[in-house]
Amino acid sequence: MNAVLIDWGTTNLRAWLVDSEGRIVDRRAEPMGIRQVPGGEFAAAFGRAVGPWRACAPRPVAIMSGMIGSRQGSVEAPYVPCPAGLADVAAGVTAVPGVPDAFILPGLSFAGGGRHDVLRGEEVPIFGALADLPEGSGVMCLPGTHSKWAHLQGGRLREFHTCMTGEVFAALVDHTILGALMPAPVPAGRIDDAASFAAGLERARDPGGLLHHLFSVRTEGLFATQPETGLKSYLSSLLIGHEIFEMQRLYGDMGTIRVIGDAGQAALYDRALTHLGLAHELIDAERAAVAGLLRIRARLAPAT
Amino acid sequence: MNAVLIDWGTTNLRAWLVDSEGRIVDRRAEPMGIRQVPGGEFAAAFGRAVGPWRACAPRPVAIMSGMIGSRQGSVEAPYVPCPAGLADVAAGVTAVPGVPDAFILPGLSFAGGGRHDVLRGEEVPIFGALADLPEGSGVMCLPGTHSKWAHLQGGRLREFHTCMTGEVFAALVDHTILGALMPAPVPAGRIDDAASFAAGLERARDPGGLLHHLFSVRTEGLFATQPETGLKSYLSSLLIGHEIFEMQRLYGDMGTIRVIGDAGQAALYDRALTHLGLAHELIDAERAAVAGLLRIRARLAPAT
Repeated sequence: MNAVLIDWGTTNLRAWLVDSEGRIVDRRAEPMGIRQVPGGEFAAAFGRAVGPWRACAPRPVAIMSGMIGSRQGSVEAPYVPCPAGLADVAAGVTAVPGVPDAFILPGLSFAGGGRHDVLRGEEVPIFGALADLPEGSGVMCLPGTHSKWAHLQGGRLREFHTCMTGEVFAALVDHTILGALMPAPVPAGRIDDAASFAAGLERARDPGGLLHHLFSVRTEGLFATQPETGLKSYLSSLLIGHEIFEMQRLYGDMGTIRVIGDAGQAALYDRALTHLGLAHELIDAERAAVAGLLRIRARLAPAT
Repeated sequence: MNAVLIDWGTTNLRAWLVDSEGRIVDRRAEPMGIRQVPGGEFAAAFGRAVGPWRACAPRPVAIMSGMIGSRQGSVEAPYVPCPAGLADVAAGVTAVPGVPDAFILPGLSFAGGGRHDVLRGEEVPIFGALADLPEGSGVMCLPGTHSKWAHLQGGRLREFHTCMTGEVFAALVDHTILGALMPAPVPAGRIDDAASFAAGLERARDPGGLLHHLFSVRTEGLFATQPETGLKSYLSSLLIGHEIFEMQRLYGDMGTIRVIGDAGQAALYDRALTHLGLAHELIDAERAAVAGLLRIRARLAPAT
């Protein structure tokens, strides 16, 4: 039986139609995140996005993950607390009123040590990539606007940490003097930024902290210790370096870090982890997402 | 003999007319930073700002500090390297072509340990507050868009560190999801944010790093562990806490920290340092600036 899988985030919607063997039959991606849905008409947006697939008989079940299940989305699917496994996620699924055979996954929360953390959507590729971890244990890194570092143990998500690396990078480039120092974009491949990228990572090791290191983007430009065309890479790797060093301090020996991300972001973390000599492996984000959604579907009660 | 002192920064111009005893006779402040000068006509802007004072006979000498001496300003006054004392700053003064008896102070630079740092304008209050330091030695903190931490030794500026705390705060509030969580401004005094301010400082002590801690602004709101009206204070003190802890790690025992800033910013650092139990003293920014400019003027060669 076919299934429709939807990763519906704040700014983007990605959807797959898979067959009974779990093979991707069709896919679509559009900039129709929950913030872009006109008038909050999620049922209509859902119909436009996957209506044709759902017209098959028998009607394929639709499973949605991501911010669609948040307070700002269609139906709030409350967070499931960590530690949590696939069965806990499946048990937290919420049916969408008025839309038959459509379900929204809960996000996951962590509370402990005086802190809270939350994720929505990342649980899908995390559980999808579980088979890549020996005995279901290890550390995964999901780079992005809000990067997630996940610590799995025995097939369950034990704890995770969010780092606002991508969003901070964008705000600094677009809305501080640091961006003003960077030349207008030149075609990729025209910049040899490897040295600047490495320098940003090394800067992140120095004492002084991130708020101080950020000013080095200015002084590296001012004293021409980095070329202007390298400053964006320098800032990017400075932030990624801070993220990685802090997570390393938290998690200790991380074994082989599984990096799950879209090609562009995963490539940056690949470069950084390679430079830092940290064992890692890239996992294709689409493969992990589809595998995760299928695994969760398999756990849903037969009634659904 | 009268003198005109001008602190001409990126976004603001502040000027004082002082008498022969060093007393402030008149003052003005306007949002006419070097970025706001129409067509880069600095001589005209100078005339509008302080022309009436300069009409006195004999014509008072004018001394300017700040970004007016940068590459983007009127005449570039090259950086004087640290360690540097008052005499070095005075020796680096640049005359303004076409404007008689007008001088621009150089900025200061630091190079060492694989890093560069620069300041322009802050050298004036730093040297102005020198008399407040026992034997001219100690640590000063100048909070702002770009906070400066200065280490003085025997009356000379030995080293300093810039932290982009104020600019990062503004970019995060105005251009990330964190700002979207904060309610529209309510009149000061209507928010009892003391607990949130303290919580942000304590968060900065935790492991995980700043990029991770920033996300706690969201989760503290989401789990109602801080009131919405306290989230701005929480973010502010989180950043200030990171700045202070990192500088403490660098400088070790800082003795009594001298905080030099405008009332609003100094008050935030006062609260933070008090909460953290760090000895400190507030120094009025205007008093320090005027004292510094007068001391530098006294060092200028008689020919000037």
